[in-house]
Amino acid sequence: MKYGAEVNALVTQSAASIASIRFSAHYYRMIQDHRPYYIKRFLHHFERWYTDHFISPQLEELGPDHCMMKPWNVKVHGKHIRIKNSVHIVTTPDRKVSLSTWSFDEHQGHINLGDNVLLCPGVRLDSASTINVGDNCMFAAGSYVTDADWHDIYDRSRPVGKTKPITLAENVWVGDGAIVCKGVTIGKNSVIGAGSVVATDIPENSIAAGNPAKVVKQLDPERELVTRSKIFDDVQKLDKDMDEIDRMMLQPNSFIGWIRSKIAPRRGD
Amino acid sequence: MKYGAEVNALVTQSAASIASIRFSAHYYRMIQDHRPYYIKRFLHHFERWYTDHFISPQLEELGPDHCMMKPWNVKVHGKHIRIKNSVHIVTTPDRKVSLSTWSFDEHQGHINLGDNVLLCPGVRLDSASTINVGDNCMFAAGSYVTDADWHDIYDRSRPVGKTKPITLAENVWVGDGAIVCKGVTIGKNSVIGAGSVVATDIPENSIAAGNPAKVVKQLDPERELVTRSKIFDDVQKLDKDMDEIDRMMLQPNSFIGWIRSKIAPRRGD
Amino acid sequence: MKYGAEVNALVTQSAASIASIRFSAHYYRMIQDHRPYYIKRFLHHFERWYTDHFISPQLEELGPDHCMMKPWNVKVHGKHIRIKNSVHIVTTPDRKVSLSTWSFDEHQGHINLGDNVLLCPGVRLDSASTINVGDNCMFAAGSYVTDADWHDIYDRSRPVGKTKPITLAENVWVGDGAIVCKGVTIGKNSVIGAGSVVATDIPENSIAAGNPAKVVKQLDPERELVTRSKIFDDVQKLDKDMDEIDRMMLQPNSFIGWIRSKIAPRRGD
Repeated sequence: MKYGAEVNALVTQSAASIASIRFSAHYYRMIQDHRPYYIKRFLHHFERWYTDHFISPQLEELGPDHCMMKPWNVKVHGKHIRIKNSVHIVTTPDRKVSLSTWSFDEHQGHINLGDNVLLCPGVRLDSASTINVGDNCMFAAGSYVTDADWHDIYDRSRPVGKTKPITLAENVWVGDGAIVCKGVTIGKNSVIGAGSVVATDIPENSIAAGNPAKVVKQLDPERELVTRSKIFDDVQKLDKDMDEIDRMMLQPNSFIGWIRSKIAPRRGD
Repeated sequence: MKYGAEVNALVTQSAASIASIRFSAHYYRMIQDHRPYYIKRFLHHFERWYTDHFISPQLEELGPDHCMMKPWNVKVHGKHIRIKNSVHIVTTPDRKVSLSTWSFDEHQGHINLGDNVLLCPGVRLDSASTINVGDNCMFAAGSYVTDADWHDIYDRSRPVGKTKPITLAENVWVGDGAIVCKGVTIGKNSVIGAGSVVATDIPENSIAAGNPAKVVKQLDPERELVTRSKIFDDVQKLDKDMDEIDRMMLQPNSFIGWIRSKIAPRRGD
Repeated sequence: MKYGAEVNALVTQSAASIASIRFSAHYYRMIQDHRPYYIKRFLHHFERWYTDHFISPQLEELGPDHCMMKPWNVKVHGKHIRIKNSVHIVTTPDRKVSLSTWSFDEHQGHINLGDNVLLCPGVRLDSASTINVGDNCMFAAGSYVTDADWHDIYDRSRPVGKTKPITLAENVWVGDGAIVCKGVTIGKNSVIGAGSVVATDIPENSIAAGNPAKVVKQLDPERELVTRSKIFDDVQKLDKDMDEIDRMMLQPNSFIGWIRSKIAPRRGD
């Protein structure tokens, strides 16, 4: 079926998400990095420091091996937000990432992210009850998860309205610009196509797409699924490898050359 | 029907819209505000002054009890834009709010917003003929209303193309990221689900969702609808109450403590 | 058919796209321009210089008659990006335009834009194989074209995943916020409605809309199609005409008056 065959294409992480895969030697072919090794290293440490100093205190929990790119674009509002280990958050100045919980009357929002979660630019999670996200889930650029209506349907002056928890099991992958609505459960490994609007439960090992989203394909149960956790099997080795690749690749770069590439770029740079 | 039951969930205001509900004592549980009372008061007055000085002259009419958060992110282009009383506009630097009318040949855009309208971050209204928005309408984050094609289908070099007025009756609620197209009329009280694309008329008291949007549920005609106007029944009392709550809640805050919370935030702040 | 009749409305360029039509005398009625002639001229030349100096070297090819508004908001990543003549790129600070190609293992992205292409604010093109865009294509605000999944469906730790070239024939017009997925071919002159998600081929001379996108209408084969190329028939005359209109329209403006309109705007300005 053409539609089924093509639906994979629906799942499209933003380019920026790729930038987060700082774990591949091939990364370096992607774009020529003119920074000297020590500049890149300094910026990396500065981002870590910023995250520990400014973002982490706003969270109830943040696993130690976090990686937030431009963490000043991560906007946290409210309490009861927990992020386990090895989260990756990619941001841009024009597409910040927002995690918000709200307290009104008897309602209290909670956001719980498992290990190895990926959040791409423009992702928003808004909770007035609970959003549970399993290990290894991926959120493509501009996707939006909300467990409430934010206004009562019959009393528009009253905030929050209906709210019902959302559960994303492990390895769920939410496509570019997709919306996941209140009360939805998505089973493990399932994939939500780009631009989909999910208002009903999606079973595990499925690919769902459309507005409203429907299951359009099943994952092949015979095939093994390698999850995002594979990247983080041995974080210390990973960091050491990355550092060595950086050292090797950026070794030819000079400070002057980097500045030159910024103020007088040349074709082929 | 599961789909019908869940469709309410589609209507999801962005978190930021909630921030606009500065009219609930419960607001204060949402996020701890470390600002001293006089700092908050000053910023509030500065936003009002900015709106009166820079935004209001760009509009043909702006009701006195406006409330624009970070009004420097409100972008107004063109003439014939009227906003009645008690508008609430919420913006963020990465999701500005844009109101635009265009003049080409015989075409002239008009935007008319009724009382108590709510515009959330990223909302865009583009008119080449007329967009009429009734009292108490709410636009969730990223929603888009346009009464023209902007290029002629058969003459791509010619601007505007087909254009036909849009009418949203009172109490219409447009969900997150939804698009309302030229010539559409939406009846009073109706709700448009998140991510919907509305290209045909929607009757009153309906909930519509999907792309293309279809009516998926009716509002219960037996139940009374409380509209957004309830918030603004007595604006003077509202402002006085808000001020007293601010004074009470922010009274313990010191200037030093506020600065500390900015430069050295602590878990539990 | 109501749906067919209204579907044109789906195709909605953002207002900002209109701003790019700097080629119509009527433009000037749109918004009163208070800048003195020489200020406007200087800014125009500065944008051209910026594009030639900073953007062009990042591209393999850029036709000489380019026009990028606020080109510092154009983000180019990766190699093998070619743009032919008379491209128009409109940006805003909160909706940058992004062109990205990626190299992983055997994959190498390519983006090829024909003559007279229009890219509006927030447009993203992401390639891991090839995106071919014909002459006179138009991309409305926030539309997204991606020729890859960016993660393998069965190995989530592996970047790029499935990738298959995309071809947009000449005069294709992609609506506001629409998404075009990997492997898709769209025939010449066809129009993709706002908010559509295109995962299957669309034949020529069609209007397609919805998620998933389906053909909802045919263009009338009897009617001649005037393409965007008409605007650029004689670029030198166009530039000369534009300059003369500017000189005439902005002649009454003084530097002091311009500054006054910025710091103390008045209704009717």
